[in-house]
Amino acid sequence: METLNVELGTRSYPVLIGAGLLRSPQLSAHVDARDVLLVSNTTVAPLYQAAVSAALAPRRVVPVILPDGEVHKTLANAARVLDVLVANRFARDCAVVALGGGVIGDLAGFAAACYQRGVGFVQLPTTLLAQVDSAIGGKTAVNHPGGKNLIGAFHQPDAVFADIETLKTLPPRELRAGLAEVIKYGLICDAALFAWVEAHLDALLAAEPAALAHIVRRSCEIKAAIVGRDEREQGERALLNLGHTFGHALEAATAYQEWLHGEAVGAGLVMAAALSHECGYLRAAEVARVRQLVERAGLPSRAASVTAAALFEHMRIDKKVHGGQIRLVLLRSIGNAFLSADYPPDALQRMLAGYCRGGP
Amino acid sequence: METLNVELGTRSYPVLIGAGLLRSPQLSAHVDARDVLLVSNTTVAPLYQAAVSAALAPRRVVPVILPDGEVHKTLANAARVLDVLVANRFARDCAVVALGGGVIGDLAGFAAACYQRGVGFVQLPTTLLAQVDSAIGGKTAVNHPGGKNLIGAFHQPDAVFADIETLKTLPPRELRAGLAEVIKYGLICDAALFAWVEAHLDALLAAEPAALAHIVRRSCEIKAAIVGRDEREQGERALLNLGHTFGHALEAATAYQEWLHGEAVGAGLVMAAALSHECGYLRAAEVARVRQLVERAGLPSRAASVTAAALFEHMRIDKKVHGGQIRLVLLRSIGNAFLSADYPPDALQRMLAGYCRGGP
Repeated sequence: METLNVELGTRSYPVLIGAGLLRSPQLSAHVDARDVLLVSNTTVAPLYQAAVSAALAPRRVVPVILPDGEVHKTLANAARVLDVLVANRFARDCAVVALGGGVIGDLAGFAAACYQRGVGFVQLPTTLLAQVDSAIGGKTAVNHPGGKNLIGAFHQPDAVFADIETLKTLPPRELRAGLAEVIKYGLICDAALFAWVEAHLDALLAAEPAALAHIVRRSCEIKAAIVGRDEREQGERALLNLGHTFGHALEAATAYQEWLHGEAVGAGLVMAAALSHECGYLRAAEVARVRQLVERAGLPSRAASVTAAALFEHMRIDKKVHGGQIRLVLLRSIGNAFLSADYPPDALQRMLAGYCRGGP
Repeated sequence: METLNVELGTRSYPVLIGAGLLRSPQLSAHVDARDVLLVSNTTVAPLYQAAVSAALAPRRVVPVILPDGEVHKTLANAARVLDVLVANRFARDCAVVALGGGVIGDLAGFAAACYQRGVGFVQLPTTLLAQVDSAIGGKTAVNHPGGKNLIGAFHQPDAVFADIETLKTLPPRELRAGLAEVIKYGLICDAALFAWVEAHLDALLAAEPAALAHIVRRSCEIKAAIVGRDEREQGERALLNLGHTFGHALEAATAYQEWLHGEAVGAGLVMAAALSHECGYLRAAEVARVRQLVERAGLPSRAASVTAAALFEHMRIDKKVHGGQIRLVLLRSIGNAFLSADYPPDALQRMLAGYCRGGP
């Protein structure tokens, strides 16, 4: 087992990484509440709910099991979680525990942020994507039909438990989706991680525990450090949105039903690289390297079902719009990203035309 | 015009107090956004919406007009506000402006807190209660059928404009409700303010501008100072809940349809005083003084329609419950309040029996 810390003063918290954590006494030691609301979904609950409830004994553990999928990350389902908290008379000193992937973590975290203006919150991510990205950093949200994560709050967890063993039961499609965020970290700030994923992709796709443990650990290190320096996304943290403005728009344009979040991010990373090349920042050979890794990881590298116009329309409502201009993360090289609002608008349109429905 | 400051580091903001502020250029100077969502209700909007929209020109001002009343302070109406923000493609650099009483301010503030994880927010309180209390301090919320303000966020406004002129059009019942919070400040920490209200109650009930200006200014001073020292209610700020655990329970027990918030607080203040006496902290003569002022202000001093059992049941879900015990604010004297979780439970039950339906 390994422990990282997200350093946020009085709100600092540990990220524990290891095998079998969901069954360990560590779990109980980090949940400081007598009453626990365990939020999970119909896929994950049958696998781990009993073990987690046992690990949290003798606390009162009330489960809320939601349907599985991004389409269920709604305000209505957050309200359902809140209803259960109220119905069970949970007080401000309770804790909400999220057991599942990014959808469950984001939604349960938002409910924890809103209930009595903020109660305890613990993340038990069971997907690669949640372990390497969404469970860390305190961004919570639900989707709106008009846009991804438009309703949310910053609410840091009290602890994160990344139990590598849960990745054994992860469907291959979910594993691939998680790789998109790992590739993202490499592109933003760690060329060595990018090269490592290139070199060990077969082991990763075969879910070899040592390979997965390596990328979870390294990804958590990167994310924890960035969040510790810029909790509220005043600067550096925005780099973590590489590929996400495109990805969020892809998800919203397809009503959250077609793409997994990580799949949309995969295509978004290629688009960001292509735009960076259109703007003269990134060499064509590096764009090709990004596209090849995304495709080898089994992720989509273009938006076959969405028109450029539809994608652009959804980009305009994303949270990165300031003063009417969409701020995007671009690449100078693999491992070197930067925020830009002054790219040429026609370069963006050219790139979109090339990567969306009806493109070449 | 007078300006106070709520000192919260980088999130400090001014509270402007004066006559005619809603029509003044000051308003425009403090709204740092091109897109403004103006949230109001069907009572207040016909009176001031046009003037405020004109003062904010040439910004894009999109109105959302909700029905009037505590019963409409719901998650569903907050969702309606969020829908309008999305439908109009408002970006993170927009501002939500609340024009109305505490219901509008709390609900609009919660929507501003959640939209894109937090956008700009300006309070234009038009009731005495909102001017002296709810518009300041960043507590936002909506009600749940199971409890008052159970769903919410801390989200400080960027500015507060208390336009004393709006109190001219305030219905007498609303004016009386606002006085409850002023009496509360006196009881907590300012015996001179309490005595001033006793001495000038006729002028206050007649809505004399100079008298109202005095209590708005003094109340804002007290609240701004307390919030500046304890934004997240880790300590001192909890004293502002004097009478509110009883009051919130009264509101919830009557489905938010019978009492104005300030009316429930009025009865709650008398209950808190009576319990303080039951516990041996407060002299009977001071309980009588509290009850007399509340009654002279035209506020209820007991809960004629709610049983002690129903009231207690609703108190248990209030946000002040820690470790199973309801924390209450009690009084040692007028002007001296303290937080207690170790009062004798039977003293609470005796007091409730005396002040609820079926009591003496």
